[in-house]
Amino acid sequence: MRVLVLNCGSSSVKFAVIDTKTQESIASGLVENIGVNGHTKAKGPEGKIDFNFDCPTHAEAVDQVKKFLDAQKLTDTIEAIGHRVVHGGKYIKSEKVSQEVIDYIRSITLFAPLHEPAHATGMECATKFFPGLPQVAVFDTAFHQTMPQKAYLYGIPYKFYENDGIRRYGAHGTSHRFVTAEACKVLGTKPEETCLITAHLGNGSSCSAILNGQCVDTTMGFTPLEGLIMGTRSGSLDPAILFYIAKKYGEEYGTIDKLDHLVNKESGLLGLSGLSNDMRTLTQAASEGNKRAQIALDVFCYRLTREIGGIAMALPRIDAIVFTGGIGENSFYVRKQALDNLKLLGYQVDEERNLKSGKESNHLITKDGTPKAIVVATNEELLIALDTEALVK
Amino acid sequence: MRVLVLNCGSSSVKFAVIDTKTQESIASGLVENIGVNGHTKAKGPEGKIDFNFDCPTHAEAVDQVKKFLDAQKLTDTIEAIGHRVVHGGKYIKSEKVSQEVIDYIRSITLFAPLHEPAHATGMECATKFFPGLPQVAVFDTAFHQTMPQKAYLYGIPYKFYENDGIRRYGAHGTSHRFVTAEACKVLGTKPEETCLITAHLGNGSSCSAILNGQCVDTTMGFTPLEGLIMGTRSGSLDPAILFYIAKKYGEEYGTIDKLDHLVNKESGLLGLSGLSNDMRTLTQAASEGNKRAQIALDVFCYRLTREIGGIAMALPRIDAIVFTGGIGENSFYVRKQALDNLKLLGYQVDEERNLKSGKESNHLITKDGTPKAIVVATNEELLIALDTEALVK
Ligand SMILES: Nc1ncnc2c1ncn2[C@@H]1O[C@H](COP(=O)(O)OP(=O)(O)O)[C@@H](O)[C@H]1O
Ligand SMILES: Nc1ncnc2c1ncn2[C@@H]1O[C@H](COP(=O)(O)OP(=O)(O)O)[C@@H](O)[C@H]1O
Repeated sequence: MRVLVLNCGSSSVKFAVIDTKTQESIASGLVENIGVNGHTKAKGPEGKIDFNFDCPTHAEAVDQVKKFLDAQKLTDTIEAIGHRVVHGGKYIKSEKVSQEVIDYIRSITLFAPLHEPAHATGMECATKFFPGLPQVAVFDTAFHQTMPQKAYLYGIPYKFYENDGIRRYGAHGTSHRFVTAEACKVLGTKPEETCLITAHLGNGSSCSAILNGQCVDTTMGFTPLEGLIMGTRSGSLDPAILFYIAKKYGEEYGTIDKLDHLVNKESGLLGLSGLSNDMRTLTQAASEGNKRAQIALDVFCYRLTREIGGIAMALPRIDAIVFTGGIGENSFYVRKQALDNLKLLGYQVDEERNLKSGKESNHLITKDGTPKAIVVATNEELLIALDTEALVK
Repeated sequence: MRVLVLNCGSSSVKFAVIDTKTQESIASGLVENIGVNGHTKAKGPEGKIDFNFDCPTHAEAVDQVKKFLDAQKLTDTIEAIGHRVVHGGKYIKSEKVSQEVIDYIRSITLFAPLHEPAHATGMECATKFFPGLPQVAVFDTAFHQTMPQKAYLYGIPYKFYENDGIRRYGAHGTSHRFVTAEACKVLGTKPEETCLITAHLGNGSSCSAILNGQCVDTTMGFTPLEGLIMGTRSGSLDPAILFYIAKKYGEEYGTIDKLDHLVNKESGLLGLSGLSNDMRTLTQAASEGNKRAQIALDVFCYRLTREIGGIAMALPRIDAIVFTGGIGENSFYVRKQALDNLKLLGYQVDEERNLKSGKESNHLITKDGTPKAIVVATNEELLIALDTEALVK
């Protein structure tokens, strides 16, 4: 089946056309700067586009995707649309899009203020520009809904869970779920008998503990801010630091919005290094002697180890640690530091395998006869397409 | 040597007279409700007191301690005073009290707003009421100053560390240091060759990772809010939860002070259970079927495991997990849950030893031939007295 995968963000619409049989992407692209001054960039079997245009709302963006697919002679081949949705609230698996689903997504806007309204609008636009095509919503939080209560509750008054749904939801669930399945293929094990730590390390980063194929703990929390150090996000923090900063720097940081911006946009690798949020830039700079870049790397890798250790306790054993995402798939430096830090669990990196990201060793990057770590490429779009196919068939 | 140990809090002064030779407490007591309507309670070799009196400031409280010690005929036997100080800022070990030390403690008031001014005032009052006696300050953060930078830095802009000293400091250092030494005696090992996890579980709770006698990571952070679930403190939290609550409940929680109160005073075991912050009450209630008490216990024990797992990765091996503090020393329920959760590391509780808190098994509560967990009583006052003696001799 050919599925149009849509990822409607606050100011962009990303898309891909996936053939679920070949598992290949036939066309892909994005419309960005919605509301400011639109820009679109896409490629498909008939060629590429890249131009600016007037794009005041998501409607013009989805219209642009439609026009591109028309030009690529793809529109008629598409049988369904799959939407990536950042926050699924109560949903524990992918759902066929209905007015009820759209309304629910809008109702949890406060959970992901920039994303949820865009997702709901995207579904409505898709209904308009691709009439008659069935649509499916795939939620980034759904995979984590198997966490037990002791892992998802915070130590705040219970009423905030009961009345407001404040709990750990996690994120990147689609990626954690995808690489869990891939890892089992690589390991030759059944998911329902496999215990994994999955480490999705990209601009946003999170780790999950997988017990017999099911997520039992994850490092991201109520929002994608908690846990690991990320590109521009602080990750976990003594909450009292915010109180301190707000009091000492009232003018600069004294409001909730300014504190939010501080920990979500000015922090993480960028804030520690003062240089960049990009792992490539930082590893390069550190190797050339940039001290602050080195500090950012050290804190990133140490925190990664500390968070893995924390969630690992939810497992009786670890069959493999699975690295994925832009950093997880590519940064041999980060993988080596993190695994070296995990001495207590016995990890021993094989330098050559790690340098080649496991490409010549069936994904394996640790020494034979020692605990396994593997590198697996994630493919969230493919999983969205497969879920969509499964639900509309 | 006889040492008067003073713990000057925001509205109370606790004291004890410790004989460093016998390591016994000769007299002890407290003055509470300073500024409201004083109440004092104390016992010593000559008997007890317990009465209300007018106590507008710390000066009257320390005066009261002096009068009690006079009545107990102890004043002339005291050779030095040791002060417990919650936050040591830059100090990496205990210090003789001087004007410089007092000024520095006042200068870091923002780090522990309720405690630091009280400590400084307490030192000045002690100088006035016990003229000529040497004084020593023992800092709760000092033991944690050996943490490496990668463990104490947060993922926020580096300037907050450089300019404001925002970093992980930890707390309960005096207790972690005391039980580290005690554990080595129990285990028959040298501190400089021993790797431990120390779990101080009381109203406030924290765990530390001890590598060859030195602290390399701890769960409390910039303030004593981070990490474990505590009596009324939330422990670690996705910081974005605070943004959400402030926005949704502007009237009730919209200010920094109200959020601070929420996570420090209304949360933790109390907030989850809606019943009590006291572990005895909760284990009792849970055993009688109270569901919310059970939830609070489950979250408490799971978080304990998760935090231990995180900091444990800083060690190459764990020679023992050491339980201390009111809960650690007494709650066989909590110790059992926590160790059962640590399956990955192989812990196996011996039920009978655990029920007796290791009292008949040389502190040991796990099965022979399995990884060791022990119970050790903490004694911060004794360590303050011993530090004081060492510095004034
Ligand atoms: N070869 C590489 N070596 C190290 N880091 C890399 C490499 N390629 C990509 N990255 C890093 O991956 C991160 C982006 O990951 P990605 O998964 O694409 O992010 P997103 O979360 O936005 O999907 C960036 O920090 C980037 O520097
Ligand atoms: N026998 C017991 N069983 C379980 N919990 C206990 C027991 N005795 C004391 N506690 C708990 O210890 C906690 C207080 O610990 P303590 O170390 O005295 O606190 P603080 O941090 O104030 O010094 C309370 O939660 C109390 O319920």
